[in-house]
Amino acid sequence: MATPQLTVDCVVFGLDEADQLKVLLIQRKLEPFAGAWALPGGFVHLDESLDVAARRELQEETGVETHFLEQLYTFGTVDRDPRGRVVTVAYYALVNLRDHTVQAATDARDARWFAVSHLPPLAFDHGAIAQYGLQRLRAKIRYEPIGFELLPPKFTLSQLQRLYEVILGAEIDKRNFRKRILKMDLLQPLDEKQTGVAHRAAQLYRFQPERYRQLQRSGFSFEV
Amino acid sequence: MATPQLTVDCVVFGLDEADQLKVLLIQRKLEPFAGAWALPGGFVHLDESLDVAARRELQEETGVETHFLEQLYTFGTVDRDPRGRVVTVAYYALVNLRDHTVQAATDARDARWFAVSHLPPLAFDHGAIAQYGLQRLRAKIRYEPIGFELLPPKFTLSQLQRLYEVILGAEIDKRNFRKRILKMDLLQPLDEKQTGVAHRAAQLYRFQPERYRQLQRSGFSFEV
Repeated sequence: MATPQLTVDCVVFGLDEADQLKVLLIQRKLEPFAGAWALPGGFVHLDESLDVAARRELQEETGVETHFLEQLYTFGTVDRDPRGRVVTVAYYALVNLRDHTVQAATDARDARWFAVSHLPPLAFDHGAIAQYGLQRLRAKIRYEPIGFELLPPKFTLSQLQRLYEVILGAEIDKRNFRKRILKMDLLQPLDEKQTGVAHRAAQLYRFQPERYRQLQRSGFSFEV
Repeated sequence: MATPQLTVDCVVFGLDEADQLKVLLIQRKLEPFAGAWALPGGFVHLDESLDVAARRELQEETGVETHFLEQLYTFGTVDRDPRGRVVTVAYYALVNLRDHTVQAATDARDARWFAVSHLPPLAFDHGAIAQYGLQRLRAKIRYEPIGFELLPPKFTLSQLQRLYEVILGAEIDKRNFRKRILKMDLLQPLDEKQTGVAHRAAQLYRFQPERYRQLQRSGFSFEV
């Protein structure tokens, strides 16, 4: 029986040193849309699960490996691909951009980080998929501690606050934010301070995922 | 290129007259799992979007048409279907069970409502998909006014409260619940009272979707 073809595509978010929210794009080598920018992705192989396909395509086309990858939504309008009927399972991933060197390969001529606020026109319906990913990220960082995936393992409370401000697109009251975050008891203060600042170096913290899982089991809800 | 086949499956929830939460299942006519109970669903045609395929399969196999249908998750482990590689896009739907007569047809030998708490063993990974749907419903009725889809157009506050209690599996304080619900100003009190009760007939209400959309635009968040 004739069946739609199946691809996976990844909306990968990163935060750069200037606290700008970025999305990883590849420049397509092949038709359709050769030369256009697109989300990393490709066809699902028969012998791999969807998650595995998403990680494989991301790694092949950009060199990026991610710890946090979640399914976003499956896009399947009839005319979304000029090659014929192609349904795509979209994923979103969060990476600490400072840890990743991007390296284009296979079907990607180039791979680069673009500011979310200045994305180029994208191939297929990838522009809509990227916006959907951004919406999900905005909703989800408020009730799940996923924002830490975008930060270095050791961070200051100011870095964490800026992350929320950048993603939510709104200023946050510093005092309330700190109180709320520290009250949840998910951050471990480290015996270290920020380096590279002349004076008033800030306290560094570490997110404790095992502590979060423990609290979750007793009915705790994360909320920022 | 060899590509996985693509199906859609629907977790359809309804609330019966005894306020029991139910799921609509079909009994499979064909192999694999002939005679077993399963979620209504089937293969996606080349010329239909995923949503259209889900509504078509549901209507064909059970006679049920639904207003509320949302994508749930796409299930694609390698070995989930003995026929070979089949990926399924799962949907969940909410219906006012009192309005629907179920009528099995096409690939379904029978179609029936089962209590969520007493589902039979299901074909494929449909048991896991149904549980996933239930989790989503539990999370979502708290922050989106979707529960009304399960009620008749005119309902009492007690009916609404029982709906929440049944889905969340927990008792709710009557006074707080009423206060919270009425404060959101989403319900229109009708010039009608409950019929069929001997005395103390309760006030009937109607949910106002247009009012909700209006409030949403001004930043309102639904929360129960």
